[in-house]
Amino acid sequence: MNTLEAIFNRRSVRKFTQEAIGNEALHTILRAGMSGPSAINSRPWRFLVVKDPATLQKMADGNGSTAEPLRQAVLGILVLGDLERAIERAPEFWVIDASIACQNMLLAATELGIGSVWLGTWPVKEKVEAQRRLFSLPETVVPHSILAFGYPEASQKQLPSKGGYEEDRVRFEKW
Amino acid sequence: MNTLEAIFNRRSVRKFTQEAIGNEALHTILRAGMSGPSAINSRPWRFLVVKDPATLQKMADGNGSTAEPLRQAVLGILVLGDLERAIERAPEFWVIDASIACQNMLLAATELGIGSVWLGTWPVKEKVEAQRRLFSLPETVVPHSILAFGYPEASQKQLPSKGGYEEDRVRFEKW
Repeated sequence: MNTLEAIFNRRSVRKFTQEAIGNEALHTILRAGMSGPSAINSRPWRFLVVKDPATLQKMADGNGSTAEPLRQAVLGILVLGDLERAIERAPEFWVIDASIACQNMLLAATELGIGSVWLGTWPVKEKVEAQRRLFSLPETVVPHSILAFGYPEASQKQLPSKGGYEEDRVRFEKW
Repeated sequence: MNTLEAIFNRRSVRKFTQEAIGNEALHTILRAGMSGPSAINSRPWRFLVVKDPATLQKMADGNGSTAEPLRQAVLGILVLGDLERAIERAPEFWVIDASIACQNMLLAATELGIGSVWLGTWPVKEKVEAQRRLFSLPETVVPHSILAFGYPEASQKQLPSKGGYEEDRVRFEKW
C-alpha cells in the first residue's frame, strides 16, 4: 500500500473479529511507534502491550464510554510518556512525541490490514489516573493514549471519511 | 512506497536544494495533515503556508537554533491549534491532534520524495509567542510546530537511523 493510501484511507475501526494478531505484526507496529522523530531524539515513550481480555475490560472501564471498542479488541497498547527521558527545558514535548508514536502505529496497522482506533486518555485527569492505578505505574510514567487493534469486522471495511480537505483551514504567507 | 518503508526510512532532512515544491504536492501534504483522527472529530488544526524567503528567515529567527534548516527550505508550514474547535471538556487534546497532522504531513512528503524536518514550537513559550507576534495571530490560534520542506541535498539521502527498536521500552500485560 502506498503511504498516501494508508493516510487517506485509514478509518477508526471499532468492531473487530477475534482473529489473533501475530507476533511479527505486533513487532512491526511497535517498531513503527519507535520510528518517529522526537524532541532532541529523546524518544520518551513506553508501550504496555495487553492481550488478556480481562485486562482489556479493566482498561476500558477506566477510559470512558468512547473506549468501548477495546472490549472486543484482541490487542490494546497503552502508550505512555517516560518523564525520565523528557527534555528538561520543556518536558511537555513528550506529549507530542507520544502522539507521533501513536499515529505511526495506526498507519503501520493499516498497512498490515489491521484495524485500529485511538482512545484518548491524556489530558483527561481521571482517565490518566485510572490507567495509572490499574497498572500501578510509577510517577515518572504517564498514560497518554490507548490504541485498540484487531482485524476489522466486515461492517467496518467501507467506513465513510469523516475528514477531507477544508479550504478554510489553510492560509498563505500571512494570517 | 510501502507505508512501512516511509515510516522506517523517514529521516529529519536539514539541507535542501532550491527546487520548488509544486502546488499538487503541497495540496497532497495539506490533505494528509487533515486526514488524521482527532478527538471527537474536532479537527482543531490550521495551516499557515509560507514560501517567501524573507518570512521563512523571520520564522527561523523566532524559533531558536534548531530552526536553522528553515532558512534554506523552499516551504515552511506553521501548524496551529484552533481553540475555537477544541473540545470543551479537555481542550489540550488539540496538542495531540495537531501532532497527528504534522506526522501525517512528514510521511506524505516522504512518499513524494520531499525531505522535511519538524521544528518544535509548543510548549516553549517564547517560541510560541514569537510566531504569534510575527503573524499577528488571534488569541484562539496557537502555534504548535513548524515543518520545513524541500528536496533533499545529495548529502541528506543516506542519513543514519537515530531510532530503532528498543526492547526495554515494551512491557507485556503488566508494568
